[in-house]
Amino acid sequence: MAIYDLSGKNKYYTLYTLLREDIMGGRYRAGEKLPAKRALAKELGVSVVTVQLAYEQLLAEGYAYSRERSGYYVDKVNVQPSPTRAVGERRTPENRAEEKYSVDFVRGAAPAKLFPFSVWAKLMREVLSDCGEHLLERVPIDGDWELRSEISAYLYRARGIDAPPERIVIGAGAEYLYGVIVQLLGREKLYALENPGYGKISAAYSLNGARFVPIDVLESGISAEQLAKSGAEVLQISPAHQFPTGVITPASTRSRIMEWAENGDRYIIEDDYDSEFRLSGKPIYSLHSLCPDRVVYMNTFSKSLAPSMRMGYMVLPSALKDRFDAMFSSAANVVPLFEQKTLAAMLRKGHFERHINRLKNYYRAVRSSVKSAFSNVGDCKIFDTGGGLHMLASFSRYPTDEAVKTAAAALNARVKCVGDYLIAPMKGWEGCVVLNYGGIDAESLDIFAKKLAEL
Amino acid sequence: MAIYDLSGKNKYYTLYTLLREDIMGGRYRAGEKLPAKRALAKELGVSVVTVQLAYEQLLAEGYAYSRERSGYYVDKVNVQPSPTRAVGERRTPENRAEEKYSVDFVRGAAPAKLFPFSVWAKLMREVLSDCGEHLLERVPIDGDWELRSEISAYLYRARGIDAPPERIVIGAGAEYLYGVIVQLLGREKLYALENPGYGKISAAYSLNGARFVPIDVLESGISAEQLAKSGAEVLQISPAHQFPTGVITPASTRSRIMEWAENGDRYIIEDDYDSEFRLSGKPIYSLHSLCPDRVVYMNTFSKSLAPSMRMGYMVLPSALKDRFDAMFSSAANVVPLFEQKTLAAMLRKGHFERHINRLKNYYRAVRSSVKSAFSNVGDCKIFDTGGGLHMLASFSRYPTDEAVKTAAAALNARVKCVGDYLIAPMKGWEGCVVLNYGGIDAESLDIFAKKLAEL
Repeated sequence: MAIYDLSGKNKYYTLYTLLREDIMGGRYRAGEKLPAKRALAKELGVSVVTVQLAYEQLLAEGYAYSRERSGYYVDKVNVQPSPTRAVGERRTPENRAEEKYSVDFVRGAAPAKLFPFSVWAKLMREVLSDCGEHLLERVPIDGDWELRSEISAYLYRARGIDAPPERIVIGAGAEYLYGVIVQLLGREKLYALENPGYGKISAAYSLNGARFVPIDVLESGISAEQLAKSGAEVLQISPAHQFPTGVITPASTRSRIMEWAENGDRYIIEDDYDSEFRLSGKPIYSLHSLCPDRVVYMNTFSKSLAPSMRMGYMVLPSALKDRFDAMFSSAANVVPLFEQKTLAAMLRKGHFERHINRLKNYYRAVRSSVKSAFSNVGDCKIFDTGGGLHMLASFSRYPTDEAVKTAAAALNARVKCVGDYLIAPMKGWEGCVVLNYGGIDAESLDIFAKKLAEL
Repeated sequence: MAIYDLSGKNKYYTLYTLLREDIMGGRYRAGEKLPAKRALAKELGVSVVTVQLAYEQLLAEGYAYSRERSGYYVDKVNVQPSPTRAVGERRTPENRAEEKYSVDFVRGAAPAKLFPFSVWAKLMREVLSDCGEHLLERVPIDGDWELRSEISAYLYRARGIDAPPERIVIGAGAEYLYGVIVQLLGREKLYALENPGYGKISAAYSLNGARFVPIDVLESGISAEQLAKSGAEVLQISPAHQFPTGVITPASTRSRIMEWAENGDRYIIEDDYDSEFRLSGKPIYSLHSLCPDRVVYMNTFSKSLAPSMRMGYMVLPSALKDRFDAMFSSAANVVPLFEQKTLAAMLRKGHFERHINRLKNYYRAVRSSVKSAFSNVGDCKIFDTGGGLHMLASFSRYPTDEAVKTAAAALNARVKCVGDYLIAPMKGWEGCVVLNYGGIDAESLDIFAKKLAEL
């Protein structure tokens, strides 16, 4: 049997937990005898009482039963050997089972090694020393003033966006902020969402009880006609680089949707989720800059720092910020002050922008490798608008999603098609593979490129 | 004019921000001339260019205008000298204006000096060294396994609650968790809330789009009759120590509400918000222990650690946990892993329970001082059920909320009455002052006691 690590306090409880996990995970079968108390105690270097207590706990909770003068047996339990319940799976994150693909064009997380962890850790230590007990203070609902000031200055430098700290709200990531948006604008409103679109966005609106209507996105941008007819009062859009299509909303469409918003009490939520990674060409002008009274600008640090960093922000129009203050004044911000101060220091000292520049250089190389890998495939057409960390590929010999996925599977490549991101049926993106290269590593890409070339 | 602190980078932006705040805050009036550039630069020890840039920014954003060969003037802006927009108010938390009372029976925050900050900081440094880059990993939606295991063990030790880590969910505080509850159980359900009750609870349900019905709480507990007739499908209750009344739900009522829940697909949300502070008598048995299939147990660390600590947890019935996993599997936990690991270490090493014990000793003394202060007032009746950090006081000579508040105001004491926490009209708590002594300091209590005695 597995040797359990029972260092630390609460040995019996730890043992009980590990045994229960193994029972639930199916390592022990129903009716199987558990190890004899004395033998297990000896093996683990703990007292017999510890094992006794753990067994009693299992008994009490129905994971095991005892037979007089025989021992303890595993009871019939509703074993669910699903991936999330596998034996030991939850003990250390490294154990997490992940299907092995030769190359993964779906996972978007940047390699953790690119994150300047030593800088981050150093800043954390500094913040801990500098701020001391102030870190225990309640953070106002819109976030730490210092971080908001730094974000304000950053937005001005990097995106030309004029967002005074007063109008900035810090939140625990994009999905959290969508919830706030629904509370702020009202869940009785009809929200227009991009189709195809990022599934978590429609899921967030649904979870928060808001109704939404899908608006088609084609190569020429989102359909302003559909929007006008939809009856929607709020539009959620990623004008600089749409996911998954990569479409940049053209100027003519921009004018039309701005006009739509201005002619009515309507709002636009501008999700600028990967604008930091515009790898060629000039930055795309933000909708917020065009119409700060009607556009909520939103962005996060998940793409640029680490997916574990649940920190995002939005810039609200003044009127909405007043409403926000009135609605939430008694609440506290959910992002710990510690993380807010550390990020503020990272922005203030220029580490954030240095990190982004390093990431951009890295991704430029990845992008060009991906492109050159596909350039050898005769019938491959790449659709790349120069922004973000994904582009599209289509192949005339594989006209359908199914055909192209079958081909990808033969190469053991994990891919999704634009069709997988449709929130309502529409035509125009058949057979388009989304090449999300944010989380790809050079080595597997090399191997993949060779396989491609051999075809 | 105020001397601005322009240390750090981005001097011009800082100056611009501070000037703008002063304009918005009304320290500068419309039409008033801003200081001459050279003079201000000299005063602040910065270059003229810095001031020039700051002024240009103000100009560009319409906070100021320039007159040729005369200088810069403050433009007419929509000045809102509201409390949250006061000059300088947001710069440092210390500046926050707070009304001064001789004694404050409303604020519930424990004095920050009681928090073992040095222990916390030490654990943070250890976590940073021990976990390293693992801290960047995405936390599963239900939270870090180690913290959930520690909470599980703690609940068993301290509350006799059997809550395996699998059924525990970590969230960013109670208000956040209410939002999750509404998403999990459905916002189409009718929620029964205690009346009177904590305003943030009803606000959280409202914000999340759930309808609720108030159920009266009297000295004899929540009305099981009203609940049965209400048509509600979910009951939110604090059975161990209700806020603000302090009522402990009697056993007979417990049976009835458990029966109510079991005879239907109904759930009970047990908010055990201050159970750590049962200062006399035995712990109140939790509803969750009685019926783990129908009761969601909820608690936070805001009361026990610091209000800034937006960390709470709930123990879900198995069926609800499965639903939770299915609904939110793709989302990430919003509480940073860093804080979760630090809290886990605090629990594991026994610091948390030592801290609670220190707090309990401290509060026992405060409670007895409060009681003895009022014992000299002849017609004062104290209603104290031995739990939590609040009790009630009523005075036969002040039969109404208004009368007792007028008397308190004369003593410059900040108080609220039970009536202030009513979410719907009801009778039975007239003239009951809520003595929330969680945030009181000994010195002001002494002075207050002397004043009381002089009456």
